[in-house]
Amino acid sequence: MSEVRGKAEAARKACYALAGLPVEVRDAALHNIADSIWDQRDALLEANKRDQVAAEAMLDRGEITGAMMKRLELTSDKIREIVDMVRSVASLDNPIGKTLYSLELDEGLELYRVTSPIGVVAVIFESRPDALSQIACLCLKSGNSVLLKGGSETRFTNQQLFTVIRDAGKGIPEGWIQLLEAREDVKQLLEMSDLIDLIVPRGSNSFVKYIQSNTSIPVLGHSEGVCHVYVDKDAEVGMAVEVCYDSKVQYPSVCNAVDAILVHDDIASMFLPQLLERFAGKVEIRGCSRVLEKVKEGIKSATEEDWGKEYLDYIVAVRIVDDLDEAVEYINSYGSHHTDAVVTSCDEAALRFMGAVDSASVFWNTSTRFADGYRYGLGSEVGISTGKIHARGPTGLDGLTIYKYYLKGKGHVVADYVGAEAKVFKHRPVNKKWVQTRTTSLPDD
Amino acid sequence: MSEVRGKAEAARKACYALAGLPVEVRDAALHNIADSIWDQRDALLEANKRDQVAAEAMLDRGEITGAMMKRLELTSDKIREIVDMVRSVASLDNPIGKTLYSLELDEGLELYRVTSPIGVVAVIFESRPDALSQIACLCLKSGNSVLLKGGSETRFTNQQLFTVIRDAGKGIPEGWIQLLEAREDVKQLLEMSDLIDLIVPRGSNSFVKYIQSNTSIPVLGHSEGVCHVYVDKDAEVGMAVEVCYDSKVQYPSVCNAVDAILVHDDIASMFLPQLLERFAGKVEIRGCSRVLEKVKEGIKSATEEDWGKEYLDYIVAVRIVDDLDEAVEYINSYGSHHTDAVVTSCDEAALRFMGAVDSASVFWNTSTRFADGYRYGLGSEVGISTGKIHARGPTGLDGLTIYKYYLKGKGHVVADYVGAEAKVFKHRPVNKKWVQTRTTSLPDD
Repeated sequence: MSEVRGKAEAARKACYALAGLPVEVRDAALHNIADSIWDQRDALLEANKRDQVAAEAMLDRGEITGAMMKRLELTSDKIREIVDMVRSVASLDNPIGKTLYSLELDEGLELYRVTSPIGVVAVIFESRPDALSQIACLCLKSGNSVLLKGGSETRFTNQQLFTVIRDAGKGIPEGWIQLLEAREDVKQLLEMSDLIDLIVPRGSNSFVKYIQSNTSIPVLGHSEGVCHVYVDKDAEVGMAVEVCYDSKVQYPSVCNAVDAILVHDDIASMFLPQLLERFAGKVEIRGCSRVLEKVKEGIKSATEEDWGKEYLDYIVAVRIVDDLDEAVEYINSYGSHHTDAVVTSCDEAALRFMGAVDSASVFWNTSTRFADGYRYGLGSEVGISTGKIHARGPTGLDGLTIYKYYLKGKGHVVADYVGAEAKVFKHRPVNKKWVQTRTTSLPDD
Repeated sequence: MSEVRGKAEAARKACYALAGLPVEVRDAALHNIADSIWDQRDALLEANKRDQVAAEAMLDRGEITGAMMKRLELTSDKIREIVDMVRSVASLDNPIGKTLYSLELDEGLELYRVTSPIGVVAVIFESRPDALSQIACLCLKSGNSVLLKGGSETRFTNQQLFTVIRDAGKGIPEGWIQLLEAREDVKQLLEMSDLIDLIVPRGSNSFVKYIQSNTSIPVLGHSEGVCHVYVDKDAEVGMAVEVCYDSKVQYPSVCNAVDAILVHDDIASMFLPQLLERFAGKVEIRGCSRVLEKVKEGIKSATEEDWGKEYLDYIVAVRIVDDLDEAVEYINSYGSHHTDAVVTSCDEAALRFMGAVDSASVFWNTSTRFADGYRYGLGSEVGISTGKIHARGPTGLDGLTIYKYYLKGKGHVVADYVGAEAKVFKHRPVNKKWVQTRTTSLPDD
């Protein structure tokens, strides 16, 4: 058996025991992890220093950028933030064991749909020292085992953080957390549909796309965020300009930044000059031929590649459309079903746009930048999904849960419900909660 | 472009328009479909006759069984049942446009999580004439486009039924329903992750397994149903015997029939003779060595292949375990996470078993045969899923839905929520529903 498979099997074995643990045990372990991270901050900073030395050499060789270098740096302040994050995950509501509904199928025969962990989650994440701890803690909170594969640029930091978390996870079944380090391990992971229930890839578009198309294991995430703002003929122009500005300039290098602005022909002559003025010197505008007809200066000509492109930069494509339907059709074909906004004062137009645009998040008179787990009030974010099943859009802890059906009877048999003398099901909703007993006591501290 | 891809693209295009249709239009189309199926029953019966003639030849050549032959037969009574089914789907609650929750992020900035269709669903189904109509109607009710691929044994019936449904779908965007006929088309489907959002395979274990492991498109379904009954030391023996009997004998050829009975050592000597007596002449029992020690006659010796086997027949494996933990561990490793039951009078044991067994349905003192969408009160069943995300266990219409986030603001921008003067999010739950306007009027009748 390969080393990776051994780790996945250990995680699978642990997940069954983990699923039965009461939330008090999981929360106590989280607090213990927070304490340990703080106690061992010197060792963490030292490990991070080793990563930085290696990264400096890579920077010299031009293999990484200064921004990447900056991102992997760990400081005492950042460790404090990590500790706070771990405690905040501990303070979140227990996502497991919630009764979603209960139904009396017949006298004494009660059905409960109750939230449960998924099982084994594999997360492949970017080189940021806080990523590992965030993911590990979200998985622990939701009762899932986790396989972690971080970027090689934070290898030493990841090793140290992993060791601290594993050793501090008091009362949690051994094996629940596993660290993978080699790039080749990922390829093996993708084949283990018998051991892994969900893969969460975080990172570059091409990387996520590679994962999505090379595994039969369900994937939660998004490769691209090609986002649009449609400025309707009934838009308030000042508001439209500010929504476009924030959607692009507030943080252009992220998935929920706007990539293309669509403007209704009727309002284009009024809107475009104001947009140009606001974007001047900050954002490069690439216009379609109809835009170029209306605005002669300060705009580049868009090429076919600009439509459906995610810039992650201070660039935006602008296109004139004849009506709302054209905007919707454009967005559904060129977009990535991530986040799209309409600016309009007309309720009917807004509702029609929002109903017809097939994206995880559809906004009305707001910046696309609001598409985010924290802003949505989800607490902590696992990722943003552009998939169409399970979880869509910014995804919090509930993306790491599923449900189980519990049926409690008194010796009920199906034979009584068939044939000439068949008993009839009641299917009566009852407002009862499934109460799980503890399977273990709290660990000693 | 291949013919299959053309059909998938037409379905994709239609799904956007379909998603915006009000439920009244979808329900009206369903009633129209019901009328048409009844009106055109003669053509349907005639098409089915052609399938039967072909099937008889296959039966003579030993290519199909008599049971399969029987299953593909259509009668006036069956057409009446199909018509009733279509009307019952029309009468189900609208699964689309339900506000799951709403949250005021800040003054005037409201977030809604609202149910929506998935998009394009491909269903590959067994040779039963009612399968096509059931699936098509569930997809229409939930606003999804559907690609249908039925068994070749009901080719003519499927063609006729497809034509009737397509032509009767008044007001529904053209292209929403597509029929595929060639076996090779399935292979092409599996590659179209850009056009298909969900595959629902129904059929033999090996077929479903093939689908699951050869596509990156999400799959809803189950290959195997390896189900267990664990008879605890505190079981009421008479009840345990009857639960085992019903779980096996009531209908042995289905996924939720029991395959292995695990019995606690303490109660085995009392339980086994009664089980044998009840199963005598009906069910073949294959026991582990410890069972054979206790019961000398009327039992075969189980081999390693019997553990984890789905029989779909009047055969059951029986195994003695030392305690509940051993039963749980056995079920989690040998089972298929479908349906498993415990028989016990001890609440603590039942809860521990139900918490630790990682199956979609976990039962207490009831037959495994209850795991079924109709019995669960789901209305109509799409399938039974042993997957760990999206939908688990018997899955009704909600397995064909996902959600969208709607955010409504008044020109809100993210820049106001960052920095020194940052506004603070309220994240206040509000009890408001998202109301979608009609995008089209009811079609004329």
